[in-house]
Amino acid sequence: MGSAARSTWLSGDHDLDIFIGVSEGSSLLPALEIARLVAPDFEERYAEHAYVHARFEGFELDLVPCYLVEDASRIISAVDRTPFHSRYVSARIKGIEGEVLLLKQFMKGIGVYGSELKVRGFSGYLAELLTIRYGSFLGVLEGAAQWRPGEVIDLAGHSSRDHEEPLVVVDPVDPGRNVAAALDLDRMFQFVIASRLFSKEPDLEFFFPKAIPPLSDKELLEEMAKRKSSIIVLEFAAPDQVEDVIFPQLRKAQQSVCSLLDRNGFSVLRSDADWHRPPPAEVRDGEISGSNFGSIRILIELETAVLPRVEKRFGPPAWEAEHANKFVSSHPEPLSGPYLEEGRLVIEVARKFVRARELLQSRVASLSLGRHLGPELRRGYKIYGGEEILEIGDLEFRAFMARYFSARCRI
Amino acid sequence: MGSAARSTWLSGDHDLDIFIGVSEGSSLLPALEIARLVAPDFEERYAEHAYVHARFEGFELDLVPCYLVEDASRIISAVDRTPFHSRYVSARIKGIEGEVLLLKQFMKGIGVYGSELKVRGFSGYLAELLTIRYGSFLGVLEGAAQWRPGEVIDLAGHSSRDHEEPLVVVDPVDPGRNVAAALDLDRMFQFVIASRLFSKEPDLEFFFPKAIPPLSDKELLEEMAKRKSSIIVLEFAAPDQVEDVIFPQLRKAQQSVCSLLDRNGFSVLRSDADWHRPPPAEVRDGEISGSNFGSIRILIELETAVLPRVEKRFGPPAWEAEHANKFVSSHPEPLSGPYLEEGRLVIEVARKFVRARELLQSRVASLSLGRHLGPELRRGYKIYGGEEILEIGDLEFRAFMARYFSARCRI
Repeated sequence: MGSAARSTWLSGDHDLDIFIGVSEGSSLLPALEIARLVAPDFEERYAEHAYVHARFEGFELDLVPCYLVEDASRIISAVDRTPFHSRYVSARIKGIEGEVLLLKQFMKGIGVYGSELKVRGFSGYLAELLTIRYGSFLGVLEGAAQWRPGEVIDLAGHSSRDHEEPLVVVDPVDPGRNVAAALDLDRMFQFVIASRLFSKEPDLEFFFPKAIPPLSDKELLEEMAKRKSSIIVLEFAAPDQVEDVIFPQLRKAQQSVCSLLDRNGFSVLRSDADWHRPPPAEVRDGEISGSNFGSIRILIELETAVLPRVEKRFGPPAWEAEHANKFVSSHPEPLSGPYLEEGRLVIEVARKFVRARELLQSRVASLSLGRHLGPELRRGYKIYGGEEILEIGDLEFRAFMARYFSARCRI
Repeated sequence: MGSAARSTWLSGDHDLDIFIGVSEGSSLLPALEIARLVAPDFEERYAEHAYVHARFEGFELDLVPCYLVEDASRIISAVDRTPFHSRYVSARIKGIEGEVLLLKQFMKGIGVYGSELKVRGFSGYLAELLTIRYGSFLGVLEGAAQWRPGEVIDLAGHSSRDHEEPLVVVDPVDPGRNVAAALDLDRMFQFVIASRLFSKEPDLEFFFPKAIPPLSDKELLEEMAKRKSSIIVLEFAAPDQVEDVIFPQLRKAQQSVCSLLDRNGFSVLRSDADWHRPPPAEVRDGEISGSNFGSIRILIELETAVLPRVEKRFGPPAWEAEHANKFVSSHPEPLSGPYLEEGRLVIEVARKFVRARELLQSRVASLSLGRHLGPELRRGYKIYGGEEILEIGDLEFRAFMARYFSARCRI
């Protein structure tokens, strides 16, 4: 199954998907037994049910037991759908496999390839369906240049329900399913803009972009001097979990931290987060001990890390007598006011947290940060502010900072 | 005419309005001649037409020529309406003159009495009509406690058109006119809130509030230290104009300055402005020469007077291809980006004005500041930032600052 079975795999990709089908109603266990016998170097993994991940002559093998159902709408587990996808694509891809490869590499180059939760981009199957729909790589690019949010592509012409996602590609083998369900709005339009630019001015760099080198101490300081903003990095140990578990929680945690700052008057310019895994053979020293699953780092760039002491609080309109009274009596010792602004009551009070760092120290542990990330943070974290981020020396972080400062998404 | 004619004048008020009526169609000039003969110490003033302002035995006399028209809707000049007002009120105010006085003094005490453009509050005639409508001082307060924006009071029950103002009191002698047209929304609700509070807990201080004493250097520094915000005062010479000309322009200028700062990323916490007249017999030295009409001072309190260099610019949604291209090509050398945020293009550039003072120095002269204020500012101005405002020592400014910091509008 998968791209290897239909000659649409990218070079450098050494993944093979081997499915072991059993008939509906039987047990998957014999199939799992067979999977364990394929290669001596293997481990068992779990998605909806158990499968085997093995290494064999330089290849990464997924050996997946599945049910051979009659109709894709009657699948028991998501993997049962894969044979239908393979069959649908194989029957229509002959002669345009090269177009699929171009499209996949283009997507990879501009950073939108992969439906895993880290990327939230285009899956391989989605790239294949788009190529079938538009006939060629350039055809897809021309088509995408016209996309708007809510775009619907329905190859089999039998969409069976409405979808909310920005791109809807009805699964030809399962009309209730959106193949592009995992695609993020911004990833979608990164692809749209890159399509427009490439059509106007083709360039090999879209496929193979130059790597952005990690920043030296000096370069990091220079970038910060150019911006004169306030950068804060919150660091804590990563839990023992896979990417698809960590990244959604990481986004949630990042969102919680940003909204805490925002609610307290700190204007967030931009933010990013990443999971920095330790190099395999090396032991990390230091600050965060007791974990070798790497570090979670949440970067927040603020307009300013220090606010004035005075804070303006807006109350209800003066004509809502009861609310107005409650508002005034709940601020017994204001710095200024109460006064009126366009009919609304305003009171100025002394702000509790003048420094972003103090706010984080006081509140970050009580935020909703995700099921696995929350406990890790509460076990210990570190805040780097301004030039303190120079203390984080690993190249992965410095490359992350380089990407952050450039923030150019091949568009 | 006026309050003196109907026993509703406040003590301390030494204004007398004397109207000299001529029949419709005749000339006003003989009436003006008579006015000039009343008192030797007089000057001629102009509203819609000439009148005489005279000083006589401690009184300020307005001697106003007017037409005696048959019907208030047929008036030629605004002053011709006054005799109708006087007649309407006199016929209905007997026995409740004391209630009118209480209401007027209450309004004066809480700072909402006077329809002149400096105050934008309640006129004497409006106070009289409210007393007639609600029967007594406490009746007005009870009624007002229920007011909402768009409140309509129509004594004669013959409103002839819709009004936009927050309070509409149909003029019983001229149904097309709103007696409360000059009343500002915030002044209206200052009165409403004070009415509620007084009804709950009567206090003589509503009528005769304690004066807020001017701030010493030490007190000024203490107040600023409590707030830790950035205060800027823009000062320039006042033109030779009366209050009703200066104050609307002052508000416009203040608005222009605040919106310039806001547009450039400086968050305005609050702002106030005032016209500080020089003490009559004293010659002012100094900074602003060539004028003895006092100083215009616009105070702006900012969250911060220094912004980060990096500035985030939001462009169109990525799917608007033409606008998107234009946006990207108009920012050829961004600090970061272009990137996408919820489908919109974003570019980060180097901000031109990092300091509020530099922005003001570069742009304030080209703002729209009012017909008379604009030229005065362009002749010269001074900016005081932070502790520099200590250089402004006059008591009027220090009292203004005391009111600014307290910002308590008797509510």
